[in-house]
Amino acid sequence: MATAYAPHFIRSENVAADVTTSSSPSPVTMVQDELKKIAAYKAVEFVESGMVVGLGTGSTAKHAVDRIGELIQQGILTDIIGIPTSIKTQEQALSVNIPLSDLETHPVIDLAIDGADEVDPDLNLVKGRGGSLLREKMIEFASKRFVVIVDESKLVDHIGGSGLAMPVEVVPFCWKFTAQRLELLFEEADCVAKLRICPKTGDPFVTDNSNYTIDLYFKKSIGDLKAAGDAILRLPGVVEHGLFVDMATTVIIAGDGGVTVKNKS
Amino acid sequence: MATAYAPHFIRSENVAADVTTSSSPSPVTMVQDELKKIAAYKAVEFVESGMVVGLGTGSTAKHAVDRIGELIQQGILTDIIGIPTSIKTQEQALSVNIPLSDLETHPVIDLAIDGADEVDPDLNLVKGRGGSLLREKMIEFASKRFVVIVDESKLVDHIGGSGLAMPVEVVPFCWKFTAQRLELLFEEADCVAKLRICPKTGDPFVTDNSNYTIDLYFKKSIGDLKAAGDAILRLPGVVEHGLFVDMATTVIIAGDGGVTVKNKS
Repeated sequence: MATAYAPHFIRSENVAADVTTSSSPSPVTMVQDELKKIAAYKAVEFVESGMVVGLGTGSTAKHAVDRIGELIQQGILTDIIGIPTSIKTQEQALSVNIPLSDLETHPVIDLAIDGADEVDPDLNLVKGRGGSLLREKMIEFASKRFVVIVDESKLVDHIGGSGLAMPVEVVPFCWKFTAQRLELLFEEADCVAKLRICPKTGDPFVTDNSNYTIDLYFKKSIGDLKAAGDAILRLPGVVEHGLFVDMATTVIIAGDGGVTVKNKS
Repeated sequence: MATAYAPHFIRSENVAADVTTSSSPSPVTMVQDELKKIAAYKAVEFVESGMVVGLGTGSTAKHAVDRIGELIQQGILTDIIGIPTSIKTQEQALSVNIPLSDLETHPVIDLAIDGADEVDPDLNLVKGRGGSLLREKMIEFASKRFVVIVDESKLVDHIGGSGLAMPVEVVPFCWKFTAQRLELLFEEADCVAKLRICPKTGDPFVTDNSNYTIDLYFKKSIGDLKAAGDAILRLPGVVEHGLFVDMATTVIIAGDGGVTVKNKS
């Protein structure tokens, strides 16, 4: 497919994805939050009346939740049911009058919209720097379509390539031991594992599920992501990890050059 | 290898295990607790002075903990460090004066001794009906040698074959949804998933890690156990499962016909 704008992460014709690009909204450099908003609004175009919608968490997903509330308010969207991925999103969604439910009442979700911390060329993701990875994964795993919204700063050549954290949720019991096992597992990627600390209190950050988070930092590629994910999960003490492999069906990227929609084929 | 007594689970010469059998202690039928004690005492013969020892949980492992305490008291075992797999075992071990530590201080364990709920012909196990599967798995996973002690009622042709529960520890958030996913995963094995309830209160049973337990009941074989284990772990919301595949290095079985020691080769 011919594209007017190819973001730098589309490195090969072998990538199993279709790419469509909107016309550039402006040639000037936009601030990051504006880009997030553009991506979020584009994603909400996929929402149709009557849908059960997974509502993501974080600074990009927040714009999508606001936009859905706005369209409900205007009567453009009707019969929407939102499934929030965190307590924070639940509060936000209620504040903009989105009717809410949960996974148990609505085990099949039509569409989920959420941000990501990293997106690789195959639309694999790192998520969870915001601290809600387990609930996000439960809800997005149950979604027929999962639309990811990012600004172009989140694009990486390979997972871990940003040098920022890949989070792993672990039970508090013997977390240091689990952190050691995780470092050992990714020894060849020069992995460093750090307990996430709450900056305000200096205590361990506690997830919505009363667990801890170990942030992994990789100096090199971790290779096959599915194998890496399975190996992490096999470590007793691990609850979930922030690798979202083969889960995104669409990624919407907002950059200075415009909005790119990339679909997993 | 010729054996005087072949328990019924040794069905084939292809099993990758060595079997040795002690002489029968008595031709009469012994009560189950006596058999558990015999297996436990046999296991403690593998404990040497100076070892770091993982201490299991449950009615069979309890005998091993008592025996280790007795041998320390008699001065036969010295410099033992015990790593308990549950709060209950910790209390028991302290009561018989076994010096204790934890996984973080002693990340390598020489030998762990624990019971099991099921043992299949390849020495794969179901564990966790006692409610401590996660801590047991963490500690036994870190053990150079893992000796399992059972009476012969725990031997099964295939995992799930006893008709009793295979437990899965899950986060409380949307546990019903996770239970549905587990049933669906093992649809072909006619799986039924039930939340474990505390009989005294009628409330959900809460693990040492503040999670819930979903007990799975299979009518048919679940097939490849490693694949089944990985598939369970990939479900977001699952913390750990009670399949202990390729973890036992030795299984000691006490039956009316004597004690059988089976080593994974």
